[in-house]
Amino acid sequence: MKALVHVTVKPDVLDPQGRAIQRGCASLGYRGVRDVRQGKLFEIELDAPDRAAAERLLLELAAKLLANPVVEDYRVVSIED
Amino acid sequence: MKALVHVTVKPDVLDPQGRAIQRGCASLGYRGVRDVRQGKLFEIELDAPDRAAAERLLLELAAKLLANPVVEDYRVVSIED
Repeated sequence: MKALVHVTVKPDVLDPQGRAIQRGCASLGYRGVRDVRQGKLFEIELDAPDRAAAERLLLELAAKLLANPVVEDYRVVSIED
Repeated sequence: MKALVHVTVKPDVLDPQGRAIQRGCASLGYRGVRDVRQGKLFEIELDAPDRAAAERLLLELAAKLLANPVVEDYRVVSIED
C-alpha cells in the first residue's frame, strides 16, 4: 500500500522557516503572499492486511517517529492499495 | 485564498532522510514499512484575483523559492477561496 502523511506545525506554535519564506516572497516582490507555514510530508510504502490496520500503523509511526506531538499535528491524508 | 503546495524529491534522486526513517521504523520493529520518502508541504495564504492567477503565482514561487527544480518536483495540490 502507498500512504501519504502530513505533519504540520501546530497553529499556535511559531514557524520561523515559514516566516522566512513569507519574507523572501515579499522581498522578491510577491506582496500578495500573506502567510506561509512549512510542514513535512511522508510518502510511505507499507505492507498491512487492510486499510484500517495501515491507518493504525501510520498513526503510531507518526506519533513516535515522524512528528513531535508537542508542537506538531499529523494526519494520514490517503492510503492506496 | 489558502493553498497547499507539495515539494518532493524526484523519484530518481536519493532521499537519505527518508531512508533513515525507514531504517528507524525497521529498528523499532515496524518491518512492514518498505519505503519512506520525505518531502515538504507549504500552506500558503495569498491574495490573487482568481484561482488561475493564484496557481500561476504558486508555480512561480515553487520554482523560485520553495523547491530546487534540479532535484525536486513541486505540485499545487489545492487552492481554496
